[in-house]
Amino acid sequence: MAGETALEANWLDELGALLGDRLSTSQALREQHGRDESYHPAHAPDAVVFATSTEEVAEIVRICARHRKPVIPFGTGTSLEGHVAALSGGVSLDLSRMNEVLEVNAEDLDCKVQAGVTRKQLNDYIRDTGLFFPIDPGADASLGGMAATGASGTNAVRYGTMRENVLGLTVVMADGSVVHTGGRARKSSAGYDLTRLMVGSEGTLGVITEVRLRLHGIPEAVSSAVCAFPTLEGAVDTAMMVIQSGIPVARMELLDEVQMDAVNRNSKLDYPVQPTIFFEFHGTEASAREQAEMTGEIARDNGGTDFRWATRPEERGKLWQARHDAFYAAIGLRPGAKGWPTDVCVPISRLAECVLETKRDIEETGLLAPIVGHVGDGNFHLVFVVDPDDKAEMEKAAALNDRLVERALRMEGTCTGEHGIGYGKMHLLEQEHGDLLPAMAAIKRALDPLNIMNPGKIVRVDAN
Amino acid sequence: MAGETALEANWLDELGALLGDRLSTSQALREQHGRDESYHPAHAPDAVVFATSTEEVAEIVRICARHRKPVIPFGTGTSLEGHVAALSGGVSLDLSRMNEVLEVNAEDLDCKVQAGVTRKQLNDYIRDTGLFFPIDPGADASLGGMAATGASGTNAVRYGTMRENVLGLTVVMADGSVVHTGGRARKSSAGYDLTRLMVGSEGTLGVITEVRLRLHGIPEAVSSAVCAFPTLEGAVDTAMMVIQSGIPVARMELLDEVQMDAVNRNSKLDYPVQPTIFFEFHGTEASAREQAEMTGEIARDNGGTDFRWATRPEERGKLWQARHDAFYAAIGLRPGAKGWPTDVCVPISRLAECVLETKRDIEETGLLAPIVGHVGDGNFHLVFVVDPDDKAEMEKAAALNDRLVERALRMEGTCTGEHGIGYGKMHLLEQEHGDLLPAMAAIKRALDPLNIMNPGKIVRVDAN
Repeated sequence: MAGETALEANWLDELGALLGDRLSTSQALREQHGRDESYHPAHAPDAVVFATSTEEVAEIVRICARHRKPVIPFGTGTSLEGHVAALSGGVSLDLSRMNEVLEVNAEDLDCKVQAGVTRKQLNDYIRDTGLFFPIDPGADASLGGMAATGASGTNAVRYGTMRENVLGLTVVMADGSVVHTGGRARKSSAGYDLTRLMVGSEGTLGVITEVRLRLHGIPEAVSSAVCAFPTLEGAVDTAMMVIQSGIPVARMELLDEVQMDAVNRNSKLDYPVQPTIFFEFHGTEASAREQAEMTGEIARDNGGTDFRWATRPEERGKLWQARHDAFYAAIGLRPGAKGWPTDVCVPISRLAECVLETKRDIEETGLLAPIVGHVGDGNFHLVFVVDPDDKAEMEKAAALNDRLVERALRMEGTCTGEHGIGYGKMHLLEQEHGDLLPAMAAIKRALDPLNIMNPGKIVRVDAN
Repeated sequence: MAGETALEANWLDELGALLGDRLSTSQALREQHGRDESYHPAHAPDAVVFATSTEEVAEIVRICARHRKPVIPFGTGTSLEGHVAALSGGVSLDLSRMNEVLEVNAEDLDCKVQAGVTRKQLNDYIRDTGLFFPIDPGADASLGGMAATGASGTNAVRYGTMRENVLGLTVVMADGSVVHTGGRARKSSAGYDLTRLMVGSEGTLGVITEVRLRLHGIPEAVSSAVCAFPTLEGAVDTAMMVIQSGIPVARMELLDEVQMDAVNRNSKLDYPVQPTIFFEFHGTEASAREQAEMTGEIARDNGGTDFRWATRPEERGKLWQARHDAFYAAIGLRPGAKGWPTDVCVPISRLAECVLETKRDIEETGLLAPIVGHVGDGNFHLVFVVDPDDKAEMEKAAALNDRLVERALRMEGTCTGEHGIGYGKMHLLEQEHGDLLPAMAAIKRALDPLNIMNPGKIVRVDAN
């Protein structure tokens, strides 16, 4: 139609008029924003824009809506299933400059942050209040991105995931309107739970610009321990029995011997190269000790040996940093390789069977793929350490990934415990929840009729 | 249009052909199904139907969709904001005969029940497994209804609400399709969180026919205590300080002196007629004792006296049954009266201020309105004990209710912590979340384009 070409040329000009040098079309920046931490190839947006306020985000979305251009929110770019890929062009909306902690209400154990604040930044900020924010994916991700992807981590077994810890959100909707979901009350039955709908929606229903979070008291006593097991089965059985005994363990992380070797090399440690669990206990002095004793007994019954304690904060910090760096350590096993991380989650009674079958499958396939897991939740990860240019190897990894998910679904699990769908797992979401896709698509169309919010992720909708 | 009258006559015949004597148009049954436990007047449906399977529910919904007739799910009829009122006729879909426990997976701490199973029925069923289901609204409600309304109760401060304890749902959608949300994995990032969207949607987006729930281990040690306070302020401050200290109290229930008087009379007890907190502690022997000691110290610092312990199961049972009967006890204070229960929830730092202002407001207004509260969550209830035929009194109650919500919103709280919106609080939902109503209406229209699922509740949509 007449006028369309002019419009096409104009949309970047309009954004430029609003943002000045906070709009960039440099190729390096565009490519960096079209790529996450995984093996997914870069899909560069047409431009990268840096927003500094909710109202500015709203204006950016309005301009893009007028021109029917995609808007892809970007935090730290540490997602793993192609969430930030600009599959149909548009702008990458970088929220990293919205990095202010807006409120800390210590007496109510809550806070409000701009979307670009990272989890470590928040914890540094509130250190003197005696509170902390527990959700800890491997990366130092932004809290807006963590809300958008429903992030989780090592503390989820005790403190829940983002789903349980987001109290409310400020969201810019697809028409540029600004809404506030949830609130400061601990619970509410006031209408549809749009907070939980937005958490995990991966930018496909709106742009999260502010996040209200629950905080937790730093426990009086914290103790960590590392325990090696002669068999993977002994380690997984220990995790299962700890949960079934109702011990309120704060962290319980499994690393197989391949991953332990990687962690030793990467973090200059000397743990036995055996299946290992990292534990942490939170409570009063007495209850943390009681938890540790009960857990130690279960571990010993399953062949656990070489129980090492870390009680000083620096030791504990080193231990957990090593665990958080597991992904980077895995990639480091093969210089020049990329990591293809994947995760599934199964009922804990099936965890041993699922991990052991998967371990055999990896060995038979001949891929390098360390296993780590938040085993208290029944959630575990593989990292395929691959060369993305080796087509045969990538096909092997894809087939192994599909088998992993089929196995998890057969055991009544899910195709992803915490990494999300992006575009990397859309075919697996269909396997798991094919019956729900019509409802998901209907919601997507209802809230984003022009299909401009991070299109091509989670659920396919008809082109407008 | 030609044919419409025939269709009009036919829809009940079609339902009758499907259900036989499980369809009733008796006036008594219709009126009973159009009324909940509160003051809301009965709005009788055109018929009551009793379903016995998910497939049957689907067929009922398909027939109603063809004839554009409302479908109003009905569990035990114990909701409080007119949720079950047939405002535009249609059928009340009674699920109470779908009362089978379908699965108990003790090793994974989960189960699956049909929607009509009640919370007490489930707890009786699983008694020998060492597990329990903690969510306990006052009534012995159905678990489908509890999911649909996002129910909560005395244990929420420790174990969460239905939102945190529903793992998945079977839902019959407005077009009669059957979908399964969530699953048995403890966590999942697989697409939009339709489980949480359905929880609390009050039957307006679909009919819940099966519920997968988390279960919890019965703690090794349980101890309850009752403590009276000279002032309401002392009691509320105690609750706030217990939460701020991070004591993982399992239950912490406030009753004001009016409510204590009602409870004493109703349950033949002899507690002091003073503001009182009922506590419960769960844990190992050592940790439950530690929690109780720390709490006792805080209570004494706030003037708490007459600390009475209940350690034997029968004593504890009696104590908590008295608490659960608080609503009926309140109504009993004035023979022939009805109860108009309402609830709000505020950040805990504002709880004392909110409760005390409200108490003054009640006294000034001259209504009989006992206060009870799940104060660990910042959530409290009034029950206006009223004569629905006394127009002046009802107007006073309505005005007090509006002031209560305005006060809660001013203190960054919510218009309902757990009772929900129904049609009784739609004007208050608009005050709290007016900015979200367009998104809620868009979702409602997307999932229920004919507006047949419990229409006229939560959010208004244009007539189709």
